Amino acid sequence: MYSFKNDYSEGAHERILKILSSTSLEQNIAYGEDIHSNKAKEYIKQLIQRKDLDIHFMVGGTQTNLVAISSFLRPHQCVISAETGHINVHETGAIEATGHKVVVAPGKEGKLTPEAIQAVLDKHGDEHMVQPKMVYISNSTELGTIYTKAELVALSKICRRNNLLLYLDGARLASALTAQTNDLEMKDIGELVDAFYIGATKNGALLGEALVICNDNLKEDFRYLLKQKGAMLAKGFVVGIQFEALFQDNLYFELGAHANRMANQLAVVIKDYGYKFYAEQCTNQIFVIFPNDIVDKLSRKFSFEIQDKLDEENTLIRLVTSWATSQESVDAFCNYLKNIKDIY
Amino acid sequence: MYSFKNDYSEGAHERILKILSSTSLEQNIAYGEDIHSNKAKEYIKQLIQRKDLDIHFMVGGTQTNLVAISSFLRPHQCVISAETGHINVHETGAIEATGHKVVVAPGKEGKLTPEAIQAVLDKHGDEHMVQPKMVYISNSTELGTIYTKAELVALSKICRRNNLLLYLDGARLASALTAQTNDLEMKDIGELVDAFYIGATKNGALLGEALVICNDNLKEDFRYLLKQKGAMLAKGFVVGIQFEALFQDNLYFELGAHANRMANQLAVVIKDYGYKFYAEQCTNQIFVIFPNDIVDKLSRKFSFEIQDKLDEENTLIRLVTSWATSQESVDAFCNYLKNIKDIY
Amino acid sequence: MYSFKNDYSEGAHERILKILSSTSLEQNIAYGEDIHSNKAKEYIKQLIQRKDLDIHFMVGGTQTNLVAISSFLRPHQCVISAETGHINVHETGAIEATGHKVVVAPGKEGKLTPEAIQAVLDKHGDEHMVQPKMVYISNSTELGTIYTKAELVALSKICRRNNLLLYLDGARLASALTAQTNDLEMKDIGELVDAFYIGATKNGALLGEALVICNDNLKEDFRYLLKQKGAMLAKGFVVGIQFEALFQDNLYFELGAHANRMANQLAVVIKDYGYKFYAEQCTNQIFVIFPNDIVDKLSRKFSFEIQDKLDEENTLIRLVTSWATSQESVDAFCNYLKNIKDIY
Amino acid sequence: MYSFKNDYSEGAHERILKILSSTSLEQNIAYGEDIHSNKAKEYIKQLIQRKDLDIHFMVGGTQTNLVAISSFLRPHQCVISAETGHINVHETGAIEATGHKVVVAPGKEGKLTPEAIQAVLDKHGDEHMVQPKMVYISNSTELGTIYTKAELVALSKICRRNNLLLYLDGARLASALTAQTNDLEMKDIGELVDAFYIGATKNGALLGEALVICNDNLKEDFRYLLKQKGAMLAKGFVVGIQFEALFQDNLYFELGAHANRMANQLAVVIKDYGYKFYAEQCTNQIFVIFPNDIVDKLSRKFSFEIQDKLDEENTLIRLVTSWATSQESVDAFCNYLKNIKDIY
Repeated sequence: MYSFKNDYSEGAHERILKILSSTSLEQNIAYGEDIHSNKAKEYIKQLIQRKDLDIHFMVGGTQTNLVAISSFLRPHQCVISAETGHINVHETGAIEATGHKVVVAPGKEGKLTPEAIQAVLDKHGDEHMVQPKMVYISNSTELGTIYTKAELVALSKICRRNNLLLYLDGARLASALTAQTNDLEMKDIGELVDAFYIGATKNGALLGEALVICNDNLKEDFRYLLKQKGAMLAKGFVVGIQFEALFQDNLYFELGAHANRMANQLAVVIKDYGYKFYAEQCTNQIFVIFPNDIVDKLSRKFSFEIQDKLDEENTLIRLVTSWATSQESVDAFCNYLKNIKDIY
Repeated sequence: MYSFKNDYSEGAHERILKILSSTSLEQNIAYGEDIHSNKAKEYIKQLIQRKDLDIHFMVGGTQTNLVAISSFLRPHQCVISAETGHINVHETGAIEATGHKVVVAPGKEGKLTPEAIQAVLDKHGDEHMVQPKMVYISNSTELGTIYTKAELVALSKICRRNNLLLYLDGARLASALTAQTNDLEMKDIGELVDAFYIGATKNGALLGEALVICNDNLKEDFRYLLKQKGAMLAKGFVVGIQFEALFQDNLYFELGAHANRMANQLAVVIKDYGYKFYAEQCTNQIFVIFPNDIVDKLSRKFSFEIQDKLDEENTLIRLVTSWATSQESVDAFCNYLKNIKDIY
Repeated sequence: MYSFKNDYSEGAHERILKILSSTSLEQNIAYGEDIHSNKAKEYIKQLIQRKDLDIHFMVGGTQTNLVAISSFLRPHQCVISAETGHINVHETGAIEATGHKVVVAPGKEGKLTPEAIQAVLDKHGDEHMVQPKMVYISNSTELGTIYTKAELVALSKICRRNNLLLYLDGARLASALTAQTNDLEMKDIGELVDAFYIGATKNGALLGEALVICNDNLKEDFRYLLKQKGAMLAKGFVVGIQFEALFQDNLYFELGAHANRMANQLAVVIKDYGYKFYAEQCTNQIFVIFPNDIVDKLSRKFSFEIQDKLDEENTLIRLVTSWATSQESVDAFCNYLKNIKDIY
Repeated sequence: MYSFKNDYSEGAHERILKILSSTSLEQNIAYGEDIHSNKAKEYIKQLIQRKDLDIHFMVGGTQTNLVAISSFLRPHQCVISAETGHINVHETGAIEATGHKVVVAPGKEGKLTPEAIQAVLDKHGDEHMVQPKMVYISNSTELGTIYTKAELVALSKICRRNNLLLYLDGARLASALTAQTNDLEMKDIGELVDAFYIGATKNGALLGEALVICNDNLKEDFRYLLKQKGAMLAKGFVVGIQFEALFQDNLYFELGAHANRMANQLAVVIKDYGYKFYAEQCTNQIFVIFPNDIVDKLSRKFSFEIQDKLDEENTLIRLVTSWATSQESVDAFCNYLKNIKDIY
């Protein structure tokens, strides 16, 4: 049974595996200070078109978020997140476990707005409440939507005006930046946010995320935090090599674009049949509402995540494509949907 | 220049890389609940000869220690460690960052004794001090020494008598259990400690440690802690596959034995020339005292860690071998030492 | 200018001050193990009609909440609170600072319902989210409302059925239990909740809260937590003496009843003039909506808290009475309101 | 039986109690922003001869230490303490519970030296270890000894040279500054340390410590930390009034001098009989070594703390005097010792 459950079911892209093998008996410097990690950082800086960036490799989104946020905030400061934000719902209180409250603001299809942030600021005035100091967003969001450049500029403005740090979770940044409707570039992100991470676990690597710190004030002693939180790999080069492979040529974006292409094909067919989307599809996650019996039939041939029973008759499911999704499996899904739909 | 700096300079053993490649396009269940992880756990249980074990894979020693210890202790409880213990000196306060004091007891060549533990217990009587609840040991220790079965039995006894948990850090367990003077088996450890981890980062894997929880009381909800501390990999199978490869046949122990063999050869030659060891060599770490000029000359051809300037004339260095150390590099070191010694 | 800002503007009731003076040169045992603390605990146990209670004295609500909650929960567990709950809004993230997420549920006039709790449980299924383990309520609530016995029984039931601890913040318990519409007794609370605290800072003492632990499982080693969080007073008897004074006769409830009586008089007059209440007045906090010009005029003679600008013309204010509120000041307020109202 | 167990057995000095009573029905602003707290702060600033000080009142030493240290340090930073330091032994891991390691250095009679600090700095070089950032000292120390001005200057120098904060725990500062051999003034402390606290719980108040922040960099947002850790009293004026009473005239120092005088009388007699002191007596704590049978006899008439069984025949005890110790009880002790000694 083919799975559209998530974008982390497969191992790594063959070009990555090949380099891991070919470099395996090299002796590399430990703890991320090796030449592969350094080269990977150079590639990323070129892409962002800034030299004054600190880049640190980690191995998962929750880890990256908790290390970064706990390093950037003082104990009384909180981070503002959309209610759907990964740090708010699906990290088992990782941020709170480092001592910081996640203050929730209403999102629009998973995206935060300046108005929502302002409303939080208006309510937080003195030392009897936590102090808002950071805004957390994800791109693409947990609902698969993306920020336009104008939206990110607006968030950046309200943050800078209010002395708030802007942090972007890029677990699915490849898919976001290669979406058809995207108008953001890596360079824009480097200018508009204080820190963000480039996710590779969900885009071709065995595991790996690259935290990029743009704001000078946040750079000091970051490696201490990495180590303290168990996020500094002895063999840091294992992640460095993978980022080198992803960014030495265009592989990172090729893989993101492939995932989007596969999702778009699914979405077109689903739309043609008149099913409704829960949030606009533009990246590799599709949130779609099917009648229960269609869900039942689909689940005999494909696996995917049931998100919610919306009412007696309809179910919200999530279909996810990835760098590894084959044209055959997408075709199979579309044909199968056609078949059951035609009968139905 | 060949490096004897540590046992994490190379990537992974070729058999591990091969399986990572051959399974790469499989779709596996996420978050460590895949069939490879399950098989690996079965192999480990067979080795320990117990079925009632909970096993969790993580990606580094500091991470494993901090997740386990923070899960096992209540906020007012402390862990007792030798002063040389990794959690005490080289984890950037990772344990304290989870809220727990590390209480230090004097070690003998890196090993804790029942007497040292008793002395800590004698001093900790009431709620004005932290409550001793766990004993942390490593095998092999940070000085390369190993616990005999009798020693581990004695530690286990004092712990059980005093309601203390016994936790063993097995970052270098392969090397410990394949040492010539070793009389401990995996099975013994499974009986004598409450939890321990089997390190693979330093023994052939790209990265990976297997935490084994033996004590039923410590098992509940552990996966929540894994997730909260950023230690649950989306692609858990990446570690599971590597442990499967290490334990489906005898690879784990073969690699440990190889590292020890290489170290023993170095030690024999060093000893023959009359140099003193800082701690008894029996595993893959050699702590040896050389005159400064020998250290200077050695460092032109080989890299290694300077541990301490012991006095005006002598320096303590550490030489480490690994699964990847070649016979050629050991021979080269021995010959070079012979040459400079003969001239000297 | 007379203040209706809060119930902690004055020092202590004269009977309390007198005993503090008369016992001042006694030599008492330190850290809360003195005879006054013990007597106070006996009085409280008699009132609750249970002997198997552990009682600990602390000096403020935030302190009591954070010590109790961090003692009772494991790291991955959260506490459910109404959005208006003190721990959620006005403790500067004190609970999160001990590592625990506060999960918010919608309240009705500040009160939690079984339905709201059930909805939280329904959404929290696995280790990717925090684990609900405790329900936090306050009585009276932050909006001055109180729980009926039937409501508390219902909460207790859903908690026990779902292995949730029920914790009651009694910062204003005196006022709650002496409200005209109250049908709860101290004994009921002792049966229905797992732990609660009896607030005295807002009811006649210089400072002091008595945490009552009813559930045996929560009692072990609590004094360690007290000490660790800086909540164990060297001169614990200073609080013990005050609780002795409050509970050796009926002083605690007399003072609560007085505060309510003063509030009721204010509320009757306000209601007579047709102003609306934001929440039903039954205890010593009155949340009332006035036209802006009435607020302006009132604020020339009395101080109180502006809660919210509800719209262009109306403002929500809070008036608080206490054990120390004099009949004269209540009369003055009522007369003044009459005057400006008549002119208006 | 008279107790020399500690300096927190009695309530408060009568002048303090009187003011607490006379101000009790005043309506004061909450949370420490009242006029009494402000006046007390003015008195303290005059004494230190600096206007640019932030002063915050708290209610105990452990609380003050944990709030200050957790506010001043980033997560990876540690505090250096003598092994006898209160934060290291008798605060139940309060500092570690806020995430920070306490790194121990050997003390001389409870006092830290520049050499001991330098040795810690020499061992802490990179991100694999915690980063030394603060030095914790107490004056008087836990062994009753005091720092000379020259010693404090030397500590201040090494701290400033190495970017370390110097923090002084003044739980018994009154006794230290009124010791016969003391040459430090409050003004010196204000110049030489980054923050310190003035203890009153052990010197005449019901409870209360005044944290004085001298270093501008440490001042920002401190009230948030106060609140978050449960250390901000609703009735902050209860502590403010006591400090006002202690510092509006010379009461604070009178009480400290009295305690020292009582201790000196005890020490003179003990010395005359040839008993040895464990540390030099100069303040209100006496650490003296008695033969076991003397200890037995003394303990029939007086209570005190047994510190240690030094050997088969001798016991180390601690005698503590305070602001409340009467001449009669000191005379009684001296006479009784004379009697049993003469018989003996």
